[in-house]
Order: sequence, then structure tokens, then C-alpha cells
Amino acid sequence: MNRIERVIKEMNKRHLSQLLVSDATSIKYLTGVSVYPGERLYAFLIRHDGWHVMFANHMFEIPAIPFEVVRYGDSDNQIELISEYIDKTKVLGIDKQWPAQFLIPLIAKNPGLRIALGSDCVDDVRAIKDEKEIELMKEASRINDCVMEKAKAQVKAGITELELARFIDQEYLNMGCEGNSFPSIVSFGANAADPHHEPDATVLKEGDVVLFDIGCIKNGYCSDMTRSYFYKYAGEHQRMVHDLVRSANECAESIIRPGVKFSDIDGAARNMIKQAGYGEYFTHRLGHFIGTVVHEKGDVSGANDAITKEGMIFSIEPGVYLPNNFGVRIEDLVLVTKDGCEVLNKVSKALEIIE
Amino acid sequence: MNRIERVIKEMNKRHLSQLLVSDATSIKYLTGVSVYPGERLYAFLIRHDGWHVMFANHMFEIPAIPFEVVRYGDSDNQIELISEYIDKTKVLGIDKQWPAQFLIPLIAKNPGLRIALGSDCVDDVRAIKDEKEIELMKEASRINDCVMEKAKAQVKAGITELELARFIDQEYLNMGCEGNSFPSIVSFGANAADPHHEPDATVLKEGDVVLFDIGCIKNGYCSDMTRSYFYKYAGEHQRMVHDLVRSANECAESIIRPGVKFSDIDGAARNMIKQAGYGEYFTHRLGHFIGTVVHEKGDVSGANDAITKEGMIFSIEPGVYLPNNFGVRIEDLVLVTKDGCEVLNKVSKALEIIE
Repeated sequence: MNRIERVIKEMNKRHLSQLLVSDATSIKYLTGVSVYPGERLYAFLIRHDGWHVMFANHMFEIPAIPFEVVRYGDSDNQIELISEYIDKTKVLGIDKQWPAQFLIPLIAKNPGLRIALGSDCVDDVRAIKDEKEIELMKEASRINDCVMEKAKAQVKAGITELELARFIDQEYLNMGCEGNSFPSIVSFGANAADPHHEPDATVLKEGDVVLFDIGCIKNGYCSDMTRSYFYKYAGEHQRMVHDLVRSANECAESIIRPGVKFSDIDGAARNMIKQAGYGEYFTHRLGHFIGTVVHEKGDVSGANDAITKEGMIFSIEPGVYLPNNFGVRIEDLVLVTKDGCEVLNKVSKALEIIE
Repeated sequence: MNRIERVIKEMNKRHLSQLLVSDATSIKYLTGVSVYPGERLYAFLIRHDGWHVMFANHMFEIPAIPFEVVRYGDSDNQIELISEYIDKTKVLGIDKQWPAQFLIPLIAKNPGLRIALGSDCVDDVRAIKDEKEIELMKEASRINDCVMEKAKAQVKAGITELELARFIDQEYLNMGCEGNSFPSIVSFGANAADPHHEPDATVLKEGDVVLFDIGCIKNGYCSDMTRSYFYKYAGEHQRMVHDLVRSANECAESIIRPGVKFSDIDGAARNMIKQAGYGEYFTHRLGHFIGTVVHEKGDVSGANDAITKEGMIFSIEPGVYLPNNFGVRIEDLVLVTKDGCEVLNKVSKALEIIE
């Protein structure tokens, strides 16, 4: 079954006969067409009757595809064009990211049209990687493992976060990657207490945490891994928190197999951190799905009661963030296998003091 | 009048008493709070009664601000929280980019709630730069002028697009910029026929167009400029097209003063290209607004019948794209002044053969 057929199967389950896909990465996944639409309208309408339609601005290069392609210019009434292809008597599935600037005029243009979020039909298919995709994901993580080791070897007196981040970015290019899957995070000391810290001119000090959260894109697929080291020495409290976060990471990974609730995986790591008294300092979900983009739909959190399936790949990344003090996060990508999971990152998670 | 007061004045004009702002750059513009929310819900509700409310995930760092801040975790029902602060008897203004994944549940949660696109109230305020912003925009374009000249000086036998792009990116950092305002476009020869070409390993050949479309961010404000040079020689056709595009650029700039319709500015350049027989090869709008992000709301196109006002800054970028042959684009940023316009880019637009 090809990808569009798998999506239609998901649509059938949800009694959805038409779905407007607007996420450019989903359209690429389904049709092979790669367009970066910016703020312009770009969409692919999947119809139950097999007459699928792409809507694309004249300025986008669209190769020959076995679907109708409706073209328009910046000045055309694009919502009217799309409306002509919609069955007004049926619910229209809408992509989760479709912006209000298109959705509100579509609703206004078609009074009474029923709409529903529908992109899960695509995202549930994307979430399960096929063999070829799994190979590419493993390759991206192999490169990431290698760059993590190289980055660690660059840690030395006087270096700044930004210098390490640029070193990492260059290494990805040297290794034939298209680039980063997200801007490299390198955080020293108290900066690591902000999970989204942007690397700056902060200079490394003895006793600092050195947190790397990095990932590359190779052949269109992403990697993402975090390790937290210490420079010259680690205090008792730092060691304890590192040990706690590593244990939480390993505990969560140990229970992954097909059929486990994501909320239970999150709970395994979160309870361990809570019981140690650090619950309030673990401020985010445990993980996220990943594939052709670094954050795909789907998360490992208390709010997600769905269950894991073979072929899913997501991150497991517990963290403890102590404001104005330090932070530790340890993250791997994991692949759900037939009877367990495979951790795609092989870099050691043991406490390590960089001399 | 401060920025929020100016937005409320715009809301009053449109009989809008509540506006949910979700664009992170707009929220930063209005409150000073800088958050990169990724796919997480983040919003600022502007209320007619002055009781403005920020909605932010626990994991975002929010400094002390003179507004109520509603916090939540990844697992909370965030749409319910927002619903509590909305007046259900009044129209709610929605931000143009707010994704369907939040808007559709908000509509479902509040049956009968009337919604309307409302972010123009913010964007119309953002479109008019104050004195301080104008200084920052000029500074970013001064740097861009300088880097364009430096990039031109790097053009030589054997160089690739990617090497030139990386040189430009590094120069921006050397000059104290935060980074690029968009990924640098460097296109040789036929690659320049794709307006959105990404620089690759293409090696420069004699007779190639060398198109640079580049911009930086300095102190939070963006620049954006395009020049099209030739390497070693330019054929008659190339010279003619370059002359046409330059004339179209200068013609459009010559008519800009307060009170001119954007569609007329677009028309001035487009008609000139059309009359020369190249209308079908000018495939995009003439320009876009720019400020803290490279594409702000507002465009210079046949579809925009609004008029220019003093203090607006936008691009003027006609182009002619001849598939599998070559392309030329010439772009400046312009500031609407009291009685005309100031072109912020000073790099010569004359035909230039790089030896």
C-alpha cells in the first residue's frame, strides 16, 4: 500500500472523505514534491474518490505528478479556487498547522461547511517509519554520535559556547549532512538550566555542566541527542542530579515495546524524578516524534494516552533544571521494535568529567 | 502613545474589543518578551478593558511584565484556559498565523463564538517604523551593502555557490550581526532562473549570472537586498534583461511617496516588464514588508490596494526568470519619507561584469 493509500485508510477510520494537507513536509512525504512555500498558500487535497489535487503558486517549481495541479498567482483568489474542489456536504479535514489567514476566509466563503482537524491521518502514517526510513534515521544518528564525541574532544579552557556550536555545525557539513536539524544547543553551567538556551559568548569555567543538545539532517532525515558532561570536576549535587536524570532516561527506555502508553513512558521517568524531590524542575514532556523534521506530530507526555507501535521513532529526554545553578538533560532517539526498543544513540551516558 | 495603545486604536476602528495575538515576533514587539514557542501554544490577549493576559507554557522564561500571565504545562487543557478570558458575546480577533490545531478546538469549545482575522491591528502598527527602528533598519542595510561588496570581490574562477554563501554568512557574524535574516541565496547561470534556488556545489562558469539575494539581522532588525552580476562577459540578451529589470526597479522606486497604492507601484514595474515581452517571466509580487522579521505582513502586489504611509519600509524586487537559461533580480529596501522615498541600499545597480 502506498503512502496516500495508507492515509485514505486512516481517513476511512475517521469517516473523513476529504483532507486538505498543507504541511509542506507532509506533501513532500506523500507526493515527492519539495516546495518551501513560506507564507504563501500551498496545499494538497486528498479526496476519497482518488481525484487528488495540488494547489500551488506559479512561482513554485512542480515536477510532473499524477495529480491535478491548480496554479495561481499572488493576486488570485486562492480560497475560491480551493472551494471549487471541496464537497460542501461532507466534513473537510484540515491540517493542524493551517493558519487562520486561510482557514477563516475558507469558513466565511463556505457557510455551513463542517471542518475537523484531520492531519492525524497523515501524521499517524508518518509516525511509523518503513525500512528505508529506519536506515536513514540510523545513519543520521550514527553521524550525530560521531559529532558528539568530536565536540566533547574540543572542550578546553577558554572556549565559548558559540565556538563549540560552530564547530559542531561545521562537522555536520564535513560529514556530508545537509545541515542541522535544529540550531545546536551548547550550554555551560547555569545556562544549562534553560532548556532552550542559545549558545553565546559564555566562557567555560571549572565545575560547569557542558550540555550538548545537537542534531543533523542527512538525506532528509533528522537526528537529535543530548549529553551533559562536567568540566574538571562535578560536585556531589551535580553528580546526584546527573545520576537521577540518567536513571530516568534508562528507566523510560527499559519499558518501551509495542503497546505501551506514551503517558506511561513519560510517567516512568517523571515519577522517578518526582520521588527524588525534583519533579518541579522537570518542566517539559519526556519526548517528541522525529523524522524528516526534528519535531514531528506526537509526543511522549502525560497527555498522550495513545500506544506505541513497531516502527515509531521518538526521543526520550528527561531533564532537571535548577535556575541560576545548573541543568542536566540526557536524550536518545529510540526505535520501537517487534518486542522492545532499539536506542539509536550509542554515546555513553555515564557521568563523565572532561579534563 | 505606546504600541499596545496604537493597536487598541486600530481595534477600535474595526469594532474589535478583544484580540488574541499569537505571532511571537508581535508579542515581542508589544511586550518585550522574547520566547521561541516552537509548536507550543503561546499567546497574548489584548482586551479593550486594558486587562491584557499572556498565556505561556511553564518552560518559557517570562520576565516580570505588567500583565497577568497564565501558565500551563504540556498536559493542561490550554484552550479551556484561554476560553475563560474571552468575552463570548463579542467578536474575537485571531492572529493570521494561528494554527488550526488551536483554532478548531477553540471554535468547538465555544459554539457560537464569532471570530475574525484581527492581526492587521498589530501588523498595521508594526508596518510603520518609529525613528529608533528606522535607524536600526538603516544600520542593517549598511552592513548588507558592505557584505555585498565583499561577496562580489570573492567571485573568481572555480568558486561554488555554497562557498560564496558561507563567506557571506561568516561576514555577517564578523560584523557583529546576530545572523542571517534568511538563508543566503547565491545562484549561478541557469540556477538564477529559480527565484528560491538554494546554493549548492555548482561551480562558476564564464558568462554566468551571479545573483546574490542576502540579508542580515543586526540588533533585531533585518536587511534584504539582491544584485545580479555577470562573470567575465554578458551576452546581448543578458544585458538587455538586466537593463529591463534595473529600469523596472528604478521606475517603481521613483513613484513612491505617501499615498500611493501598492498595486500601482507593482503595476509600474510589471507593466514595464510586460511591455518588453517578459511579463510571464516575472512570476512573483514586487515586494514585501520587512522589520524584525524578513517577511512582515504586507506586500507590494497587484492584490494590495492599500496606500503607502510615511515610515513604512518594504522591498522593491522585480525579476525576470528564463527557465534553463538565466535570471535577473534587483532588490532594494525603501523607506517611505514625508514626500518621497529613501532607498536604503547604496550598492550600484548598474550592469557590472566581474573580471
